[in-house]
Amino acid sequence: MNKNEYYEKILSTNDTPVLIIDLAIVRQRFLFLKKLFPMSHIFYAMKANPHPKVLELLNDLGACFDVASVYELKNLLDLKVDPSKISFGNTIKKKKDIAYAFSKGIRYFTTDSLEDLEHIASHAPKANVFFRVMTNGLGADWPLSRKFGCHQDNVYTLALRARDLNLRPYGIIFHVGSQQRDIGQWDEGVSKCKYLFSLLEKEGIKLKTVNLGGGLPADYYENAPSVEVYAREIWRFLKEDFGEDMPEVWLEPGRYLVGDSGTLISEVILISRKSNLNMTRWVYLDVGKFNGLMETIDELIKYPIDTDRKGQPSSCILAGPTCDSMDILYEKYKYQLPEDLQIGDKVYIRTAGAYTQSYSSVGFNGFPPIKTIVYDSEQNVIFSDAN
Amino acid sequence: MNKNEYYEKILSTNDTPVLIIDLAIVRQRFLFLKKLFPMSHIFYAMKANPHPKVLELLNDLGACFDVASVYELKNLLDLKVDPSKISFGNTIKKKKDIAYAFSKGIRYFTTDSLEDLEHIASHAPKANVFFRVMTNGLGADWPLSRKFGCHQDNVYTLALRARDLNLRPYGIIFHVGSQQRDIGQWDEGVSKCKYLFSLLEKEGIKLKTVNLGGGLPADYYENAPSVEVYAREIWRFLKEDFGEDMPEVWLEPGRYLVGDSGTLISEVILISRKSNLNMTRWVYLDVGKFNGLMETIDELIKYPIDTDRKGQPSSCILAGPTCDSMDILYEKYKYQLPEDLQIGDKVYIRTAGAYTQSYSSVGFNGFPPIKTIVYDSEQNVIFSDAN
Repeated sequence: MNKNEYYEKILSTNDTPVLIIDLAIVRQRFLFLKKLFPMSHIFYAMKANPHPKVLELLNDLGACFDVASVYELKNLLDLKVDPSKISFGNTIKKKKDIAYAFSKGIRYFTTDSLEDLEHIASHAPKANVFFRVMTNGLGADWPLSRKFGCHQDNVYTLALRARDLNLRPYGIIFHVGSQQRDIGQWDEGVSKCKYLFSLLEKEGIKLKTVNLGGGLPADYYENAPSVEVYAREIWRFLKEDFGEDMPEVWLEPGRYLVGDSGTLISEVILISRKSNLNMTRWVYLDVGKFNGLMETIDELIKYPIDTDRKGQPSSCILAGPTCDSMDILYEKYKYQLPEDLQIGDKVYIRTAGAYTQSYSSVGFNGFPPIKTIVYDSEQNVIFSDAN
Repeated sequence: MNKNEYYEKILSTNDTPVLIIDLAIVRQRFLFLKKLFPMSHIFYAMKANPHPKVLELLNDLGACFDVASVYELKNLLDLKVDPSKISFGNTIKKKKDIAYAFSKGIRYFTTDSLEDLEHIASHAPKANVFFRVMTNGLGADWPLSRKFGCHQDNVYTLALRARDLNLRPYGIIFHVGSQQRDIGQWDEGVSKCKYLFSLLEKEGIKLKTVNLGGGLPADYYENAPSVEVYAREIWRFLKEDFGEDMPEVWLEPGRYLVGDSGTLISEVILISRKSNLNMTRWVYLDVGKFNGLMETIDELIKYPIDTDRKGQPSSCILAGPTCDSMDILYEKYKYQLPEDLQIGDKVYIRTAGAYTQSYSSVGFNGFPPIKTIVYDSEQNVIFSDAN
């Protein structure tokens, strides 16, 4: 079946809005990334899309997992994922959650503060610790804030303290922001890693791993360089800084692995104009900020959007179905949709596989979270269980 | 029991974060508003807090209901709410949803476009129609956008068309934005209503009702005038414009009725500093933007926040527990919390009864939606069923 036949079949038993995930794309992305980073460990940032079918697939392909909470951890353990492949990447952790993770066999933890480090030492003795160094994140569509990471001088102090606490200083992690379009941002991160590796080696601490974090792009409305270019440049940065003494490399992709696998199929509820003189149509969809498209906040993530109509493209403002004034998807940036678009038409929101379903509200304005249907175009199967 | 005894009892069987709602506050707010608007109809905007106990209470007290979707409508019908007390206030409606609502006995619909009006005419024949006129919403904490309403000239056209379509032009509705601090905004709205009442009367259309919408304030961190002042001024505006020919008045409060009834009890996960020289603490809570505090977006809604500590207040940045960089509650505005605040301490986020639980994500980063526990300090009962 081709893509449209899958969609037709799925829509014959499901109302819109529905998020449709093709596992074949996830598989292709993972295997391609594995080829570009052959000796590296790929830790899927499961917050991007925690659907069990996605997790199972990646687990079967040999992926490791980055979890943000004990809830995510529990979901992985329920799927029988080997705990030695799981890293607890959130630097904000309750003591009891560290203890729980440790009791389940988790041995990799990330930190950026003395307080959290001490909690790890008390509740996960001898664990391997990554230190998160702060970067500026310029150039990312979904930018960083100062919430995570600390200055490299603090990382140095933390690593010494970790050793004193009988933990194993394992590596440095940095994040360049999500959907990062400026590959040079990894250069800064890698340099900080090298600086810390050298500095700590003088103290007798031999770090093992550079964790490149996330940031690899999915195919949104505005293009980014291909992932081969990212890989080539990142390897160049690593070689320039580390030469022959190359560390182990970890990656934590989320958006890159799952973003392009998803299409969110929506329906036009209403098309109207606000006054007789207003030239821009308002197109209201049955999906909005609060039932799947939270990342349209500040119009940060621009999804590719298409329809089945062939008319001349013309400007519109796209909004969601709730009574909330904030539930507008794109107003400043004017999407061009066919002039002959009609109420009741389907609208296809592409690259919607990451940060959509799990971001849905439980029921804002009563609207339920979007339903996800998973299929696999390579294995020719539709999984019927919606979540 | 006093408030703290209720909290203690609830926390003895529930982990944080937990949202605690006191129905007594909702009852007091409703009865007080009824006193200030004795001959008016109060339609609770249930999107603010759709907890069944809140809905049942308000239904028993004689409230009517404004629904934003058929899902909300279904919840009311499940609770045996009389459909003649329900108004479908969302101007963005699927045809099948209009038909469903009409089939269940709903006779009040709001519109702001010709397209939606025609759908109402086809699927809800002879229904009563409110026309939503656009206002600017300046002065509101949670502002309006251009998403809803239309220009008064369009309202005029819509009302004539409604009559031609055999619908009943029933009234004008305007919204001044949520948590509106500038009472004068109602003056503008009332004037537009009067203008339209007069203009349409010349066409033989006698409108019945002015719907004042929402906007009445809850008690957030920054004070608003008392609701008596709002009522006094709004009556003055109505009398100035309508004199002896006073229309029926409807209100659609949400935040005012339920906001102050809720306290969100959270726990400090971590307190840290980003560098040795940084004077501002980062305080990370187990509740954030994606599990209940969505309205902290752009720091729009500032909740009163307190703790059990007595130390000197000092500045902090407040952030939530997820791995999302956006999950910061207050960074620009520096909350002052006691210097001796410790990891593990409880933090009380007040006036959290509106737009919190229903806004929670289904599981972003794995974190579940916040749990709600309802009690009634007047009737001395804790309802054990969490939602």
